[in-house]
Amino acid sequence: MALIEDLNWRYAVKAFNPEKKVSEENVEKIIEAARLAPTSSGLQQFRVLKVSNQEIKEKLVQGALNPESMKDCSHVLVFAAWDRYTAERIDKVFDYTTEERGLPKGRFSSYTDQLKAIYLKQPAEVNFAHTSRQSYIALGLAMAQAAELKVDTCPAEGFSTKVVDEVLELEKHGLKSVSLLYIGYSDEERDWMKPMKKVRIPRDEFVIDVV
Amino acid sequence: MALIEDLNWRYAVKAFNPEKKVSEENVEKIIEAARLAPTSSGLQQFRVLKVSNQEIKEKLVQGALNPESMKDCSHVLVFAAWDRYTAERIDKVFDYTTEERGLPKGRFSSYTDQLKAIYLKQPAEVNFAHTSRQSYIALGLAMAQAAELKVDTCPAEGFSTKVVDEVLELEKHGLKSVSLLYIGYSDEERDWMKPMKKVRIPRDEFVIDVV
Repeated sequence: MALIEDLNWRYAVKAFNPEKKVSEENVEKIIEAARLAPTSSGLQQFRVLKVSNQEIKEKLVQGALNPESMKDCSHVLVFAAWDRYTAERIDKVFDYTTEERGLPKGRFSSYTDQLKAIYLKQPAEVNFAHTSRQSYIALGLAMAQAAELKVDTCPAEGFSTKVVDEVLELEKHGLKSVSLLYIGYSDEERDWMKPMKKVRIPRDEFVIDVV
Repeated sequence: MALIEDLNWRYAVKAFNPEKKVSEENVEKIIEAARLAPTSSGLQQFRVLKVSNQEIKEKLVQGALNPESMKDCSHVLVFAAWDRYTAERIDKVFDYTTEERGLPKGRFSSYTDQLKAIYLKQPAEVNFAHTSRQSYIALGLAMAQAAELKVDTCPAEGFSTKVVDEVLELEKHGLKSVSLLYIGYSDEERDWMKPMKKVRIPRDEFVIDVV
């Protein structure tokens, strides 16, 4: 029950200790869990930006709803999804996968043709909604990995995507920001959430047993 | 590195062994990981439907893009999100949380007032997009928990939400289906994915180091 214990341990930290930094080794493990996340058709249609430079964090503060966490955290990971699907992006992933598996190029072309037929006719915002959703799987796994390492986190959706996209020049990467993950260690004096009981709705309210 | 090992172990199973069932204890642990998932404002704005009854699975087959997996899997979990935000739903969660924490009722009313000011003026489909995204965090954690237990899974987004919503009468619960998670054990003879190498884009392509 290791994962369940880790999930019970974690909570959304409300104040980080600015003096305590997370080791590079641990940040890389957290990112590795995100990299291994399953995604629709295996397209990995998002990227993670790793930010620890204080000057850049100060620029991102303008767009943050929790400016203290942005300033005080050790690292912030920005989950940014493909702004749209293109034939080239889809082909690049499948070309890499088939090569890594020692399969002939184009082995999955009937499948990628289907994907293109669906995605390329949809508006960019519909496709961005789809690519964004995938990144939430990785966000969750990154938080679980951090908990395994006893590293504190706070996820954030409430921020100015405009500021974040501009500061990190996401457009040139074909990406748009979706969520932030603050990483660090709780400042126990200021973190009002730390002593609070973890609350979830009871199992029988959460689950609908279809019998 | 337990989680990373589990994530390396898992893959999207393409054929389940219809004879091998997952124990109730293990299914409940998988659901527990989903229940513990973090969600925006802690609202847990989705539910999990637990289905193992073969007759109901046969009805759901009509809406499935992978009908064999629906038929052969041990259990299917349906992740279904709130169809919209309402003041009552928000208050119910916060009333429960404050009670469990021994805090005075209404302790978080300035916060819930803010949430209502944002959500209640947005169209239902914008809010459903938000509630849906939260469920992906739980979907990912459920897959990780299954992997820890060496239980196989396959997530699915491609299905008829209309069929699933109707068969499971989700409207009366104020829910709409978002994703499916097939749970069971691989049928090694038919599961063409099993021998395949797991492929992810390299770390340096996945991560943008902002320095």
